[in-house]
Amino acid sequence: MAGENMVGTVAIIGAGIGGIYLAAELGVAGFKLRLHDIDDARLADVRAFGGIDVEGERGGFAAVELATSDLRAAVDGADAIIIVTGGNAQAAVARSLALLLRDGQIILLVQGNTGGSLIVRRALDAAGCHADVAVAEMDNYPYSCRRLAPARIRPIVAKRWLQIAAFPGNRIAAVHQRLSPLFPQAVAAPNALYTGFTNANAMLHVANCVANAARIESGDIYKFYAEGVTPAVARLYEAINAERVAVAAALGASVPSLEEWFDRVYGVREASLVETCQRLTYNSDGPYQATGTPSSLEHKFITEDVPTGLIPMVALGAAAGVPTPAIDALVAIVRNMTGRDFAAEGRTLARLGLSGTGVAEIIRVMNEGFA
Amino acid sequence: MAGENMVGTVAIIGAGIGGIYLAAELGVAGFKLRLHDIDDARLADVRAFGGIDVEGERGGFAAVELATSDLRAAVDGADAIIIVTGGNAQAAVARSLALLLRDGQIILLVQGNTGGSLIVRRALDAAGCHADVAVAEMDNYPYSCRRLAPARIRPIVAKRWLQIAAFPGNRIAAVHQRLSPLFPQAVAAPNALYTGFTNANAMLHVANCVANAARIESGDIYKFYAEGVTPAVARLYEAINAERVAVAAALGASVPSLEEWFDRVYGVREASLVETCQRLTYNSDGPYQATGTPSSLEHKFITEDVPTGLIPMVALGAAAGVPTPAIDALVAIVRNMTGRDFAAEGRTLARLGLSGTGVAEIIRVMNEGFA
Repeated sequence: MAGENMVGTVAIIGAGIGGIYLAAELGVAGFKLRLHDIDDARLADVRAFGGIDVEGERGGFAAVELATSDLRAAVDGADAIIIVTGGNAQAAVARSLALLLRDGQIILLVQGNTGGSLIVRRALDAAGCHADVAVAEMDNYPYSCRRLAPARIRPIVAKRWLQIAAFPGNRIAAVHQRLSPLFPQAVAAPNALYTGFTNANAMLHVANCVANAARIESGDIYKFYAEGVTPAVARLYEAINAERVAVAAALGASVPSLEEWFDRVYGVREASLVETCQRLTYNSDGPYQATGTPSSLEHKFITEDVPTGLIPMVALGAAAGVPTPAIDALVAIVRNMTGRDFAAEGRTLARLGLSGTGVAEIIRVMNEGFA
Repeated sequence: MAGENMVGTVAIIGAGIGGIYLAAELGVAGFKLRLHDIDDARLADVRAFGGIDVEGERGGFAAVELATSDLRAAVDGADAIIIVTGGNAQAAVARSLALLLRDGQIILLVQGNTGGSLIVRRALDAAGCHADVAVAEMDNYPYSCRRLAPARIRPIVAKRWLQIAAFPGNRIAAVHQRLSPLFPQAVAAPNALYTGFTNANAMLHVANCVANAARIESGDIYKFYAEGVTPAVARLYEAINAERVAVAAALGASVPSLEEWFDRVYGVREASLVETCQRLTYNSDGPYQATGTPSSLEHKFITEDVPTGLIPMVALGAAAGVPTPAIDALVAIVRNMTGRDFAAEGRTLARLGLSGTGVAEIIRVMNEGFA
């Protein structure tokens, strides 16, 4: 952890399950940690315990030196600030951070959903941030774990392949150099189109919830990625994924198909998506064994993944002239099922700062930043 | 049953559950019956038994004088020919009937789905039918029953309100006069837009199947109209029904909202659609108590109701300039879930004989027939 460019102290913003997992893994790996949440109650157990117990072979105790709802205290002197709040809160966190940041800090969104680093950059700028901070995003959460108690987790599997992109993309070399000790399996992506269009949540959550909507609302419990993924759902996955890959390609970004993604990330590629999902659920190291059933459609699988995933994919598709009828239909069904117009609250081109922008200019912005 | 204009002998084409129910009810009511199916095996029990046993207060024995796979024998001398094959087979039945028909016979589709009488009229014409037959359609199946054995049924409830339309609409007075003894609860509708846009199957089946797709494919059993209709499904129902009513209105047809339809047909109108559907399932006279779970998405709730219900509603909406985004999304999701392009096989304007036709001309055709 030595050297002036290295990350030693990490502030994790968001003490939900994603933040706890991250603290557990990075703590065991030896990074100095602060943990922040706006809800102090979520910090109580970790604070009382002084950290998180991590079970298993490569487990241990992940010390958390500070668990606080004081954002200034959490980020002061931190080399990296990892935002694990979910996509809907990223802009608000950026506004709160804007005047607390110092030159040389890195903000990493885990994950960026689709376009998160643009949202954060715009929010920082709008809130008067003048510090020279790098903004980066990862394409997915890096671990699957099972939470056994408020401050005890059991790792299941770490993703074998992740991407980190900087915004603008031309800052990736320095960003990746500093972050790769935290996430050795993460490769550098040229820009945030690569991470944003490898958004696993947008690939996997919404279609599943639609095809299981009545069961979810009835309070049934089902194995989300096993019983929930039947041939009809797999076909829906294929349709939305073909559009996702096509829009990314039209914007110059080559992103893996869903089958390739499962293979790269988990080393699993069965004859069908249905079988792949079964294996990822029922294998002893299956990352999806602990995935719970949403208790309603007012769940982040919908309320986060539509506005911060499908909506920006559709918007970028429209800008690139690539039709997205399968995703459009899914968004419309979710709107009709929930009565919520996610397009009105989601990551439109305007909110991404890309209004009226053609393909070449979108790629330029992604690589070089806002003019 | 006397008088030269009255219907005495009825040929029922299609010995599925709908045909059996119809034979049971009309047989007990005293009509002389023939029953036809292309699959002779479906007729064996009724033929052996000589009819159908009908349980309950107003039950009795419904004699079937002829159960045959010989269409000519079935329809020869029949006053009314009721086609109960499901929408996908109506054109084929009409082609088979074309040269067997005699002046004065009435063909009634139970039900017409959406646009069935136009499909049948075109098929008769194309196959060289020169007999002066009336073509009519009903908006729904008239009964709910439970089948206890191949030739024994228990009535649950008869619909209190049905519509019969003739094609062309201007023939309705004579048609209704002759058919109303068979279906006393059926009112005369001005034309087939009224029946076609009161298509309960299109209102109720497809959205339910989409929101329960994974459960259906998993082989789960659920109470279709109770556990299967949660608030999300009810919202989907509302969205597609608003479009259905709007398209019909643009074509001059006033059709009931789903809430009004439940009220008129079953006398049930709870505070919400969810509660209405629960009551229609769990009440002792609930028409939906016996509705089974589809065993796959290759079920008539999809494979009939999309091409013969939602597709023509969308097509007529487009002709009338009324957007149908909720129905479009449902059709697109079903296409992606099943891999089947129902628009390619369904009742498009061309198949309805209405290509290039505006609102005024569609209404004229509905009322007066093809030019």
